[in-house]
Amino acid sequence: MLTVTILGSGNLATHLFKALNASEEVIINQWYSRNPKTIKAFEKTVNIISDINDLEEADVYFTAISDDAIAAFTEKLPFKDRLVVHCSGNVPMSALSPKNKRGVFYPLQTFSKERATDFNVIPICIEAEDQEHLILLKKIGSKISSTVHEINTEQRKALHLAAVFINNFVNHLYHIGHEICDVNQVPFHILKPIIEETTKKIMDLNPIDAQTGPAKRNDRNTIENHINNLEQHLPDYTAIYKTLTSSILNTYGREKL
Amino acid sequence: MLTVTILGSGNLATHLFKALNASEEVIINQWYSRNPKTIKAFEKTVNIISDINDLEEADVYFTAISDDAIAAFTEKLPFKDRLVVHCSGNVPMSALSPKNKRGVFYPLQTFSKERATDFNVIPICIEAEDQEHLILLKKIGSKISSTVHEINTEQRKALHLAAVFINNFVNHLYHIGHEICDVNQVPFHILKPIIEETTKKIMDLNPIDAQTGPAKRNDRNTIENHINNLEQHLPDYTAIYKTLTSSILNTYGREKL
Repeated sequence: MLTVTILGSGNLATHLFKALNASEEVIINQWYSRNPKTIKAFEKTVNIISDINDLEEADVYFTAISDDAIAAFTEKLPFKDRLVVHCSGNVPMSALSPKNKRGVFYPLQTFSKERATDFNVIPICIEAEDQEHLILLKKIGSKISSTVHEINTEQRKALHLAAVFINNFVNHLYHIGHEICDVNQVPFHILKPIIEETTKKIMDLNPIDAQTGPAKRNDRNTIENHINNLEQHLPDYTAIYKTLTSSILNTYGREKL
Repeated sequence: MLTVTILGSGNLATHLFKALNASEEVIINQWYSRNPKTIKAFEKTVNIISDINDLEEADVYFTAISDDAIAAFTEKLPFKDRLVVHCSGNVPMSALSPKNKRGVFYPLQTFSKERATDFNVIPICIEAEDQEHLILLKKIGSKISSTVHEINTEQRKALHLAAVFINNFVNHLYHIGHEICDVNQVPFHILKPIIEETTKKIMDLNPIDAQTGPAKRNDRNTIENHINNLEQHLPDYTAIYKTLTSSILNTYGREKL
């Protein structure tokens, strides 16, 4: 049996709690939050504490707090030589206080409070200072997910950056599509099949081979029409249209806008 | 029974041929291409012609050719007062020659030669000059798709522009994600679950509520790290990162970069 403690109570901490708590081979002995009201709903399921001096021994401490706070918070922990991991994509393992054994347990997914997440399909990226702790993290990862990858700090930063493009920026493009529909009184849901197909396509094809559209075809008339349309109705998005179109043109060896 | 003729032999024409040909209630009496070699594979299934003077009577003529050629090509057709439609998102119905009855039959999807497409889930956007022909197009649309929408020229242009954002640009962001992975020797497939979740999320949530990430959180440290990383490894994509980040910051009432 593995004993773990969760430190923090945001979106990620809550999703991680639920996933670990659902595993029969993991015991969550404590959940720390400096603001325990936010996780009061779980008080019958787990021992919630708000003072780090009450922390008991565990095999792994999961620090699921904001990136900027990881270094100072882990420095304040009232014990040493135990395994303390953070769960962030963009923070090096070395940001953790060296007084404990360090590791990373990064679930590569977008978590919203509003939406349940099936942890089983989420890739877990792990890193540790030695083989023993790497094996331990792999073991815990495999209790909640079907894919666990050993990923070093540089690679994890790259994945985090790539995720900004393929998740955060993609979602913002969906938002812009929604705005264009609203302005022209067309229901956004008409676009949902093409949104789904766009994703399905790159499950089999390399994105560079899946590209279509006016920039790929170097169809300058259509591009000009689109820019005029945006300038008239949604000028805030003209810069995004131009920058992305230029980048596609450049990718396929055409002259930029 | 409805008799139709297809004019053109590109990606869209070929997908449209396959979908219409699969319907038992539609007869494709002729398929015109000025370059019939490209569709030689279908010569046993349909009567392929390369001279517009050989065109016979049909209930609908589908003009699936490049946007710029639609006006001149339909002007040259050797008949009048029949129903001639184009299949383009970005061309007004009025671009068709007025000597025939005009209409639009626009399947809102991304078509690739490499990939079969299930027409049944593709929204068909139709437009016509009168009620009689609108009903006819609706009837044909419903033979090959479960959703047919009556959409005017302005709305169709908006959908086409929105599709550039939610398909063409999204796919380019996938390409950039792939490049970031390549440069850092991480397999791109690790990102596929988050790509899928990004799409699934907005099937239920409004994109503005589904947004996550450093720009949404106004996390300037992470943004700065990302920009430095790109400038060092993939400077071509720095402008896209900055433009999209500024737009997200602006959407959530924060100061732009």
